Amino acid sequence: MLEYVTAGESHGEGLTAVIWNYPAGVSIDLDAINRQLQLRQTGYGRGGRMKIEKDKAVIKSGVRSGYSLGSPITIYIVNKDYANWQKIMNPEKVEDQALYEEKKIQTSRPGHADLAGALKYHHTDDIRNVLERSSARETAARTAVGALCRQFLESFGMKFYAFVTGIGEKVLSSSFTDDYESLLKGYEHINENELRLVEPDQEEPLKAYLDKIKEAKNTAGGSVRLLIQNTPVGLGSYTHWEERLDGALTQLLMSIPAVKAIRVGTGISNNSLLGKEMHDEITYDRTQKSFKRKTNRAGGIEGGMSNGEIIDIQIVMKPIPTLMSPLRTVNMQTKKQAWAVKERSDVCAVPALSVVVENVAAFVIMRFFLKKFGMDNIHEIKRAYHSYLKYLEDI
Amino acid sequence: MLEYVTAGESHGEGLTAVIWNYPAGVSIDLDAINRQLQLRQTGYGRGGRMKIEKDKAVIKSGVRSGYSLGSPITIYIVNKDYANWQKIMNPEKVEDQALYEEKKIQTSRPGHADLAGALKYHHTDDIRNVLERSSARETAARTAVGALCRQFLESFGMKFYAFVTGIGEKVLSSSFTDDYESLLKGYEHINENELRLVEPDQEEPLKAYLDKIKEAKNTAGGSVRLLIQNTPVGLGSYTHWEERLDGALTQLLMSIPAVKAIRVGTGISNNSLLGKEMHDEITYDRTQKSFKRKTNRAGGIEGGMSNGEIIDIQIVMKPIPTLMSPLRTVNMQTKKQAWAVKERSDVCAVPALSVVVENVAAFVIMRFFLKKFGMDNIHEIKRAYHSYLKYLEDI
Amino acid sequence: MLEYVTAGESHGEGLTAVIWNYPAGVSIDLDAINRQLQLRQTGYGRGGRMKIEKDKAVIKSGVRSGYSLGSPITIYIVNKDYANWQKIMNPEKVEDQALYEEKKIQTSRPGHADLAGALKYHHTDDIRNVLERSSARETAARTAVGALCRQFLESFGMKFYAFVTGIGEKVLSSSFTDDYESLLKGYEHINENELRLVEPDQEEPLKAYLDKIKEAKNTAGGSVRLLIQNTPVGLGSYTHWEERLDGALTQLLMSIPAVKAIRVGTGISNNSLLGKEMHDEITYDRTQKSFKRKTNRAGGIEGGMSNGEIIDIQIVMKPIPTLMSPLRTVNMQTKKQAWAVKERSDVCAVPALSVVVENVAAFVIMRFFLKKFGMDNIHEIKRAYHSYLKYLEDI
Amino acid sequence: MLEYVTAGESHGEGLTAVIWNYPAGVSIDLDAINRQLQLRQTGYGRGGRMKIEKDKAVIKSGVRSGYSLGSPITIYIVNKDYANWQKIMNPEKVEDQALYEEKKIQTSRPGHADLAGALKYHHTDDIRNVLERSSARETAARTAVGALCRQFLESFGMKFYAFVTGIGEKVLSSSFTDDYESLLKGYEHINENELRLVEPDQEEPLKAYLDKIKEAKNTAGGSVRLLIQNTPVGLGSYTHWEERLDGALTQLLMSIPAVKAIRVGTGISNNSLLGKEMHDEITYDRTQKSFKRKTNRAGGIEGGMSNGEIIDIQIVMKPIPTLMSPLRTVNMQTKKQAWAVKERSDVCAVPALSVVVENVAAFVIMRFFLKKFGMDNIHEIKRAYHSYLKYLEDI
Repeated sequence: MLEYVTAGESHGEGLTAVIWNYPAGVSIDLDAINRQLQLRQTGYGRGGRMKIEKDKAVIKSGVRSGYSLGSPITIYIVNKDYANWQKIMNPEKVEDQALYEEKKIQTSRPGHADLAGALKYHHTDDIRNVLERSSARETAARTAVGALCRQFLESFGMKFYAFVTGIGEKVLSSSFTDDYESLLKGYEHINENELRLVEPDQEEPLKAYLDKIKEAKNTAGGSVRLLIQNTPVGLGSYTHWEERLDGALTQLLMSIPAVKAIRVGTGISNNSLLGKEMHDEITYDRTQKSFKRKTNRAGGIEGGMSNGEIIDIQIVMKPIPTLMSPLRTVNMQTKKQAWAVKERSDVCAVPALSVVVENVAAFVIMRFFLKKFGMDNIHEIKRAYHSYLKYLEDI
Repeated sequence: MLEYVTAGESHGEGLTAVIWNYPAGVSIDLDAINRQLQLRQTGYGRGGRMKIEKDKAVIKSGVRSGYSLGSPITIYIVNKDYANWQKIMNPEKVEDQALYEEKKIQTSRPGHADLAGALKYHHTDDIRNVLERSSARETAARTAVGALCRQFLESFGMKFYAFVTGIGEKVLSSSFTDDYESLLKGYEHINENELRLVEPDQEEPLKAYLDKIKEAKNTAGGSVRLLIQNTPVGLGSYTHWEERLDGALTQLLMSIPAVKAIRVGTGISNNSLLGKEMHDEITYDRTQKSFKRKTNRAGGIEGGMSNGEIIDIQIVMKPIPTLMSPLRTVNMQTKKQAWAVKERSDVCAVPALSVVVENVAAFVIMRFFLKKFGMDNIHEIKRAYHSYLKYLEDI
Repeated sequence: MLEYVTAGESHGEGLTAVIWNYPAGVSIDLDAINRQLQLRQTGYGRGGRMKIEKDKAVIKSGVRSGYSLGSPITIYIVNKDYANWQKIMNPEKVEDQALYEEKKIQTSRPGHADLAGALKYHHTDDIRNVLERSSARETAARTAVGALCRQFLESFGMKFYAFVTGIGEKVLSSSFTDDYESLLKGYEHINENELRLVEPDQEEPLKAYLDKIKEAKNTAGGSVRLLIQNTPVGLGSYTHWEERLDGALTQLLMSIPAVKAIRVGTGISNNSLLGKEMHDEITYDRTQKSFKRKTNRAGGIEGGMSNGEIIDIQIVMKPIPTLMSPLRTVNMQTKKQAWAVKERSDVCAVPALSVVVENVAAFVIMRFFLKKFGMDNIHEIKRAYHSYLKYLEDI
Repeated sequence: MLEYVTAGESHGEGLTAVIWNYPAGVSIDLDAINRQLQLRQTGYGRGGRMKIEKDKAVIKSGVRSGYSLGSPITIYIVNKDYANWQKIMNPEKVEDQALYEEKKIQTSRPGHADLAGALKYHHTDDIRNVLERSSARETAARTAVGALCRQFLESFGMKFYAFVTGIGEKVLSSSFTDDYESLLKGYEHINENELRLVEPDQEEPLKAYLDKIKEAKNTAGGSVRLLIQNTPVGLGSYTHWEERLDGALTQLLMSIPAVKAIRVGTGISNNSLLGKEMHDEITYDRTQKSFKRKTNRAGGIEGGMSNGEIIDIQIVMKPIPTLMSPLRTVNMQTKKQAWAVKERSDVCAVPALSVVVENVAAFVIMRFFLKKFGMDNIHEIKRAYHSYLKYLEDI
């Protein structure tokens, strides 16, 4: 089964990702991976760190002369900032003990892994041991892994689109339309506005809104909508809970730091449509020899399986917990009241989330795709896939 | 690692669940398990099937004289309805071929696993092969497994509460309060109203609303809120995506049939609070020797870990897809237009979902609990748990 | 991925096995499964229990009218002996406490799980809590699961043969020949002698040898050789340790109770052939359009993959640890010297092992087969398989 | 659960290993890891490559100032040889197409992954795509991972010893003694002879034997014996096949390239002792408050669990398949007869295997150790471990 692991601290030497059981013979475009890493780092509302790190993935194994080998693929992303942190982030015993002591963090920041992480791993003396790994910087490694999966899936015609649908308290209700055509049209210019909106006329008002939030030393979360086009019918399964595509997608998306809510389809919000209004009636298109829906309120997933329609998922993220006007907390050693330290100064990371989401989702889809069509090499998988398409037509 | 699998078709002989790596020495109360199964079957809005099946779990392995052995526990639930279905659900070659043919289903029902399942598994000739397993009846097996986990966790003081917060388009906004005390008080009488509300005065209006929906031959989804009390701080982990408690919990919850949306905490809805309003400031209670929060908008999970507060999750379920006034579809063999068949006639299953959710969640919490405290026997786990509590006090 | 779990105590109500991710559309022959269960129970040297239990598998889910559904398959095997044990093996609180006390076991038997199991799971007060599950009776459930896998693989031409190659100190060196043709010819009559030998003229001397061992109140282990024919080239992988076919096969085989040694191929014994003598030179058969070997000292596995030759594995099992002339031990409560109790009186279980091994191996082969060819339904898998065979010819 | 993955081609840029769910707070000694890597590269009978690569592990994540963080640990080992291979091993499209073509390999070597690997992954045009990953160089990464686990286990008093017990057809029968004291005494000087023997007087005759093999352009396999001391009783479990310690150990050991046979304990060889002679009687040592055995023919594992005695495993490895006087094969493109290419020229790798085995085994033991005692941090694990020891005494 396709698997991956990421490793690396935020200010350590670098991020490593290994992905295994990735098929042989897939054409690998490193530039396309780096394009995703770069997109992840842009977007209105980011602070200084994004200027230091211009992430570039390096492939250290599993690819030769532009093609995957079938063996585990290692992606490495240098942390350029490490030069400034080496003295206190060194894996070997530090030499400058005074500096090390000085840089210790003992006040846990609300909204972060700090408190629970320090207690769980016995890191109360220096919460840096937690926050270096719990940092959202880890999503760079996941984005690179996902971009690799996406290349594979794109060669089967699948496409991933994610765009911002809300910032803070502002929800762009028109971005929740069922009119996929207009959404995809809007997406064509997604990287031309700094907020990754499909409604570019909303860019200026939202930027002004963010400026005000920044001024108030506050931060904003928001929401993202993910569309996946051309997924074949029948990925995932209703037969066993672990095989459900919606469950697996939700796990991966929810495990992205700061994500707090996920919704599949447009029929459900805080409330739910009634049955007649919700369920997507089925028709048959004799020209395309294919079952179709006129609506897609189920969001492309029924019974834990892709149903051939666009997969449509909405994700809500909480605001960045590190505030310039910091929150109240206590010192973990003295238990006295303190202010949460601020290590970075972004106002909003929702545009970045939309990039991360596109790629993270690709991993899940690829995992289920390989379960269905075998996992050894692109040629064999192509044969199985086309044989399935033909079967679908002939049914 | 704690694992489980369920098996069984809706009209087959019975449902089987096996759970393994469950520790030895846990006192097992079969009546408490059956109480959960019974609660799952009550609730306003259920149709005829619920009257046929009065589920009773039987333990076939792993428990002896009231205590778990450490070996895999098998739970078996007879399908009483099987007597009426044996001729066409028999594992062995059917004898009455005519009846078998007559009972075939070739029109896939919108909102069900039917279409994708039939295409995936080559069951287009008889969609019964899909719907027998994709049926929500499977949640009886999961409820039993979860009830077993819950007994273990309750012996460590953990408690699980889930109640209905909305039906169809009606959302009980007061059920989304932050006032846990009043919610838990409301929960004390949860089984005294047929909709499992913590606001019993809402029972009558909502039942009337459901009656109207039923009259209109329509169905309703709705929402449920889950609270888990007394989870120790530090279950789950930020270090690896698969170890995140929120990811794992939401996978399980999303894999319950009909669940379409999940939200952790109250700070997030379709939009998101701003940073200052969202994050839960930290204090220290010197009497209880414990870190505390005044608010709990994060829903008890930060950085993929329990933070010691109440775990607070909201789940939205779609309406039952089998309608008395059926939806339009096509026959999978002839491709001609047809009406979806109706195999059962419930109007609303949200109260049942609230029971299922309480128990399914217990499995996930127990899995992470065992990772932290070992998994061999209750005595050893108790020692590890209390040693951790003492460490938390001494820090 | 294909998975299975077994459950059930030796004198409990019955054994349960669930296997999931088993493809849809496979023709299931329950009689063939029961034939394997019956073979497992015959063989010279078995004692009284084998006469009580005439195992019969019942399928409780996942199969309908003779075909697999794609949903989890439950196999249940009643313990007929349970009637005699119910009073002390009941999952609910026992009523006859005196009988329960009387039947407690506090002397751990050497060679069994007793000592380590009792200490690990806190069962020192009654080791019955261990031995009921650690009993080799569990292999009945595994045999049934394996027989199910074998049916699937046999439809692709694969065949499983295992026969006894040694009893106690007697090794049938001629059964280690490289002449597969003669071995398979000998196998044709495997069930006509009570020791499952491919050299039936050895039956009488070995039975006489066993009689003498029995007279001496001793027990015997022995060895078994497993051959798997027609496995396609390329199952398993060198790319990641968990994907190696030999590793996975030997894990399963070593996890059969009493197995202590495993060897792949005939080039290795206590010592090893030299390189020139060991490695199997490669030729090409232009008629069959296939790469071939003249020898098969590697036992059909190179680089952790099937290489298209017969898979050839030898397994050695220790003698049955329950002796009529029991071994010295201590009482776990009093720590005083004692004699190990004897719960059953077999002399030798090597013929049974040969049956278990054939079936257990089929599970592993099927798991890797499905990884290569997809896992949804037999039709799709057949297409992928034949497309691979054609590719192998065309290369 | 403790997990690891390795990545990297033999002549690629480097080897990567990531290990995750490794507890926090463990003191990490990089020099000790590198000592194991260095030992792996020494030993009589190794060829030129060993002189090029002086492996040095670098830690890129998960360790800070000498202590593990609880986050995934990345180990990287540069392939110094890469400088000479970059032109044809580059992940990006090669520039020197002529050189690339020239370096292609189309003759599959008997005894290697070549044939099956090329067919499986569609690498028949250039078998280099297989052999770069299937190379035994991968064991350097595994050795580093294992060395990390070993440091953890050594802090609980566990010790790992592996030594050579045979080369080619020569078996050192005295190295199979039950006299552990003398074996451990012999091991004290294990690195003082080039064959890692506990009987140093055998060094010269065996080296002479190897010289003759080398002269004959042949290669030799051999055997290794692994002892693990001070494992607590009760690691692993009889309750479920995947939890058996012997099964898990066997899988890992068998997945080391070239290993073909594994044996647990000394009671089993090609044949088996009888019951009375085999099983290890149990006594109780009132001074040490501990159950004991006078013999250890079971090799420290009963019922799939450690029983508190020395774990004693014998491993047999096949001869190196790359011969100076090469074997007959065919060209995979032309199907014409050819000679297997020789990429390196070692005569014997059995001493290296003994180093690899010590470390690989440590991973398995640590995985089961953490399942029993929790996995968050060293302090908590120590408390659970000592609490278990106390319980064992008090029983």
